[in-house]
Amino acid sequence: MNILLLPQPGNEAIARLVAATLGAQIGRVEQRKFPDEETYLRLDSDVNGKQVVVVCTLDRPDNKILPLLFLAATARELGAKRIGLVAPYLAYMRQDRRFNPGEAVTSRQFAKLVSESFDWLVTVDPHLHRYSSLSEIYSIPTKVVHAAPLISEWIRLNIPDPLIIGPDSESEQWVSAVASDAGAPYTVLQKLRRGDRDVEITIRNPHDLGGRTPVLVDDIISSGRTMIEATKLIAARTSGIPHCIAVHGIFADSSDALLAKAGARVITCNSIHHETNAIDIAPLLIHEIQDLAGNINCSGGR
Amino acid sequence: MNILLLPQPGNEAIARLVAATLGAQIGRVEQRKFPDEETYLRLDSDVNGKQVVVVCTLDRPDNKILPLLFLAATARELGAKRIGLVAPYLAYMRQDRRFNPGEAVTSRQFAKLVSESFDWLVTVDPHLHRYSSLSEIYSIPTKVVHAAPLISEWIRLNIPDPLIIGPDSESEQWVSAVASDAGAPYTVLQKLRRGDRDVEITIRNPHDLGGRTPVLVDDIISSGRTMIEATKLIAARTSGIPHCIAVHGIFADSSDALLAKAGARVITCNSIHHETNAIDIAPLLIHEIQDLAGNINCSGGR
Repeated sequence: MNILLLPQPGNEAIARLVAATLGAQIGRVEQRKFPDEETYLRLDSDVNGKQVVVVCTLDRPDNKILPLLFLAATARELGAKRIGLVAPYLAYMRQDRRFNPGEAVTSRQFAKLVSESFDWLVTVDPHLHRYSSLSEIYSIPTKVVHAAPLISEWIRLNIPDPLIIGPDSESEQWVSAVASDAGAPYTVLQKLRRGDRDVEITIRNPHDLGGRTPVLVDDIISSGRTMIEATKLIAARTSGIPHCIAVHGIFADSSDALLAKAGARVITCNSIHHETNAIDIAPLLIHEIQDLAGNINCSGGR
Repeated sequence: MNILLLPQPGNEAIARLVAATLGAQIGRVEQRKFPDEETYLRLDSDVNGKQVVVVCTLDRPDNKILPLLFLAATARELGAKRIGLVAPYLAYMRQDRRFNPGEAVTSRQFAKLVSESFDWLVTVDPHLHRYSSLSEIYSIPTKVVHAAPLISEWIRLNIPDPLIIGPDSESEQWVSAVASDAGAPYTVLQKLRRGDRDVEITIRNPHDLGGRTPVLVDDIISSGRTMIEATKLIAARTSGIPHCIAVHGIFADSSDALLAKAGARVITCNSIHHETNAIDIAPLLIHEIQDLAGNINCSGGR
């Protein structure tokens, strides 16, 4: 299997982890901005006849999409056999219907753009809420991998006597699975969201918190309001240091600093590069990449 | 003709000028960023059955493209009859071939993206160098308007005894036309470009500069190196205040401040909103918009 990984800027570390296990090569892409802020891009590796795997996590996507589409188009022009996208964090999953008249259903529009440029997609725990699967909006083959088992394992190895805490009732199913795998009890808080940056967190049974190390787990830390409020609530009621674990640490609004200030120890998966990365999701990706890049029964073009 | 103008953020002023002459309505688009820097977009005007004209100048395009494509897709979903793009400044015209192996030919790739989302395009003086027309890369109907006559008129009305100066030999044809219309003599300088931000400007016949008010004209001021070096050269050799006139003032690298510091009086067309805007290109756009939005013989969908 002739796989060439092409990491976009900022994705070099995870691409190296994937490449090492996969025995794949990492290609070189020269990319910079002209003074007028247009992108210059040059593929400095031969892609002809190869299974090209672009690695680009999609937090803060608006400024990333054009170089990404340019890279895919250029690889195709230069003879790549198939071009896959490994986006450990997948953007635009939240606006999954027209909540108000006239709203852009950006999840569907973004999926169309990606599907027109790539042959397949691998991602980690996308925010599937009203969609049951990515195939509802992506027209290319997609594979989703789940970080929960890695999070459970990390908790088991690193935190004695943990209490797993979900920030809201929506998270209960996911949190209960993490807790079960970690061999720990769990509870969920109650969340009331009033705006993008305005949430209220309450606890039904404060006595649930006693004695164990509190471990808040969630899929995404974005504005961080949920985790910050939950950390404050828990810090005031227990003596243990609250741990906050997320699959995807976006950390908008300097929420990483605010979480630290609130007394949390923050742990994330490396789906988005950040100093809190402690759980490596690369092993999850290998099998899916091999499957999609190596499946010679799939159509060769588009 | 039922035309609805939808200005993207920053394009309200020129949209108002166009709307006033066209007798068209301006629609409302609510647009903001979520904390995670994804775009929220809501069309707050009825587009059903209408000729929609999105107004979005495309300097600094990378961060603008996704909201622009979302807006077009949403308008189409909500029943717009046709969707045109008025981009007074058109991006990605410079990388018009693979100068080095592996380079992205971004002009073509960008044109494909725009052509897939819009039904027609109007722009002002695109940087056509190796392409003879936009139809070589845009698959939709396009119209190009030229600001030269407006620049000539502005010079005639505002600068007594001007000497029109082109910054390089490439500009000679354009500069001679501006000069002829302005009833003024012209000369061209010699430019040697060593890099994105490194140019050397020299003058063949220094005595050409004597007596008149020097007026440098160019199509684009981007990093501004050309205009800055030319201004310094001219300021050292004449007593008149050098005027710098450009169609498109991008002003990367704070070149507007650097030009002022070098002693230039800077004048631009309002294709890109800037405090130096003094020449209104809206009248040029009206006829083309009417032609493209009103042409009922064109196909209604795509």
